[in-house]
Amino acid sequence: MRLYAVGQRSETVRRANLSAILRELHTGGPRSRSELVARTGLTRSAIRGLIGEFVAADLVSEERAAPLGGPGRPSPLVRPNPEGAVVLAFDIAVDSLAVALVGLGGEVFDMVRVQRPRGHSSVAEVVDQLAEQAAVVRARSRHDALIGIGVAVAGVVRRSDGFVAMAPNLGWRDVPLGAALARALEATVPIWIANEADLGAVAELRRGAAIGADDILYLSGEVGVGGGLIVDGRPLTGVAGFGGEVGHIPVNPDGAACQCGSVGCWETEVGEEALLRLAGHQPGGGWGEVDAVLEEARAGSTIALGALEEVGRWLGIGLAGLVNIFNPRLVVLGGLFGRIQPFVGSALAAELDRRTLPASRALVRVVPARLGVDAPLLGAAELAFEPLLADPAAWLRPRGAVAERASA
Amino acid sequence: MRLYAVGQRSETVRRANLSAILRELHTGGPRSRSELVARTGLTRSAIRGLIGEFVAADLVSEERAAPLGGPGRPSPLVRPNPEGAVVLAFDIAVDSLAVALVGLGGEVFDMVRVQRPRGHSSVAEVVDQLAEQAAVVRARSRHDALIGIGVAVAGVVRRSDGFVAMAPNLGWRDVPLGAALARALEATVPIWIANEADLGAVAELRRGAAIGADDILYLSGEVGVGGGLIVDGRPLTGVAGFGGEVGHIPVNPDGAACQCGSVGCWETEVGEEALLRLAGHQPGGGWGEVDAVLEEARAGSTIALGALEEVGRWLGIGLAGLVNIFNPRLVVLGGLFGRIQPFVGSALAAELDRRTLPASRALVRVVPARLGVDAPLLGAAELAFEPLLADPAAWLRPRGAVAERASA
Repeated sequence: MRLYAVGQRSETVRRANLSAILRELHTGGPRSRSELVARTGLTRSAIRGLIGEFVAADLVSEERAAPLGGPGRPSPLVRPNPEGAVVLAFDIAVDSLAVALVGLGGEVFDMVRVQRPRGHSSVAEVVDQLAEQAAVVRARSRHDALIGIGVAVAGVVRRSDGFVAMAPNLGWRDVPLGAALARALEATVPIWIANEADLGAVAELRRGAAIGADDILYLSGEVGVGGGLIVDGRPLTGVAGFGGEVGHIPVNPDGAACQCGSVGCWETEVGEEALLRLAGHQPGGGWGEVDAVLEEARAGSTIALGALEEVGRWLGIGLAGLVNIFNPRLVVLGGLFGRIQPFVGSALAAELDRRTLPASRALVRVVPARLGVDAPLLGAAELAFEPLLADPAAWLRPRGAVAERASA
Repeated sequence: MRLYAVGQRSETVRRANLSAILRELHTGGPRSRSELVARTGLTRSAIRGLIGEFVAADLVSEERAAPLGGPGRPSPLVRPNPEGAVVLAFDIAVDSLAVALVGLGGEVFDMVRVQRPRGHSSVAEVVDQLAEQAAVVRARSRHDALIGIGVAVAGVVRRSDGFVAMAPNLGWRDVPLGAALARALEATVPIWIANEADLGAVAELRRGAAIGADDILYLSGEVGVGGGLIVDGRPLTGVAGFGGEVGHIPVNPDGAACQCGSVGCWETEVGEEALLRLAGHQPGGGWGEVDAVLEEARAGSTIALGALEEVGRWLGIGLAGLVNIFNPRLVVLGGLFGRIQPFVGSALAAELDRRTLPASRALVRVVPARLGVDAPLLGAAELAFEPLLADPAAWLRPRGAVAERASA
């Protein structure tokens, strides 16, 4: 049920169709022309013409397919050209900084992740380090068709300008990250910044555990708890991009103080710190310390197993509410939650059984994420590709000269 | 950011444009041709042609506008014709049953609401009563262009076939309501059924307190608590239509038993029963008993005021989580919550201040609903209009004969 609709002038139809084709190739990989006809609903001749425009602009290549053995001519195979459009992606996580160079179709040309000590770093330090990493990656690359920069950050971000309202686990508040990065990178292409869990959800949807699902709930546990929600195929951002902060649902109104200033937020019960505390380990120990807890659990430690069960129980309590709100097809557990799932799965399922409306419970599956720690970084690349995918025509025009040269 | 797109064949563009125009007129009321140009982005000549199709089919009328006093010709005023397409709407609430006859553009020709005793009624009884009400309303109407039937029900509904998985406050479980209504009404038009809060949200968005907002959270309190969510202009339904069940977020994991089988659901802390219990009144007393509590509060009763404050506090706790998840522009309080808002507003706001991320808090306003108890009924009418609005072209075709007659 749509509530609004805008009209379409005939000149906008070509743009929408270019978008449909490029999106299909970027997300789904090489397709025969016949598959594109089936998947976009366009006619064969329309597909042929539009593909021609992309080939001229170097965004797509075509090759003759091997004969199928069946009747009819083989349908040419259309491939996205990874070198035709390239993005730079960054991930500003609590424990690490990462950069990647990604080509159209999702090909990762280069990726560097540097662990860093926890604790608060200044924005200037982080921005300088990212600029350095980017310089290294770009220097050893021969890909120059850079069209945009995408950034994932462990905080609450205003999408319009990359202003970070709050990133408690980085110690940031009211940081104009977009402007700082633009200066440091001397960027000549747009920079897009979003919350890391929101982007993790997009990556899992396009290239991970949730391909083909329309309603998903991606839940990422690290120091904090992030949520990325896909509603009817579209990311939920809210009015300004602040949506998805599921870590701050009150689940225990008389519980522990949260970094955000509130009390009894979900992340105080299920985050890394809660697990380490319950297991008698040093909070703030990071991944190594979590590994130690998992090791103890494997060896049969009742303390470690009890801690995991308690975290699983609270995971299930919060998830039950979210499943009742969203009626999702899939819950994807990323980060910490993906790692501990084998130990917490049954406690989690028991709470879901108890607290979720049966109708929604019957439709949802809980699965581990597939892209691991790199999901937000890959999602940042998707964010930077989005303007091209949404309106390739606008983007082809300035490249008209190139297209003419190529066809001359 | 869209994740999927499908291509558009040129013959689908006309249909999309017809939809854009009719949706604009149905939702926004009479518009001049110039306004339609501005609002749909279509050209003046396209608008003229498409309006002509609607006029021929009796869905729209045009009248010459009064001269504006400015330069240029006055732009003709285009009106939706309420008698050109009519829907029947039902509301199956816990305390009442209602029926309405609504014309295109939202004109309510007739509306009947019958209070009924609480407690569980059989599906057969309810269906019979609705059929009776409908017969009365239709008998005294001279509107015969019935295009569909919409139904709001206080339960968890599968949208595809109107199967009610659960309606705890009606005492229903696994009820094929769609099929039962089709039989009882001897319906020759499609029947669409959805949850009452989901439909209340749609009505408030189109014709009530939330006109023009894209991200809203409609919260309706009665015996149970219902939620209707609009995300980026579109209703959130989830995979099967079960979404929006915010009454069953666990907010107090060791709290009271809920009708749904869980424990500590939000509706156990903020529903009508909680208010009456806290105020020392008979639970299950309905609206009259709630009025008595409000009367006592107005007279300064500390018990009544304390009960309202406690409900306000829990309202704020649950809402804080929802605001953190959705980053909405507007929270619309309907039903019980709208009535008690003057008494609970400050306790609610205090919890929001404490528990909501400041970035999202700054953007959200909490307002009372404008359509009162009739919001779900009016939303049910919108649901029944949706197929016509989404694809008027498909609908114009079978009426070709009528259109010819009219223009002959």
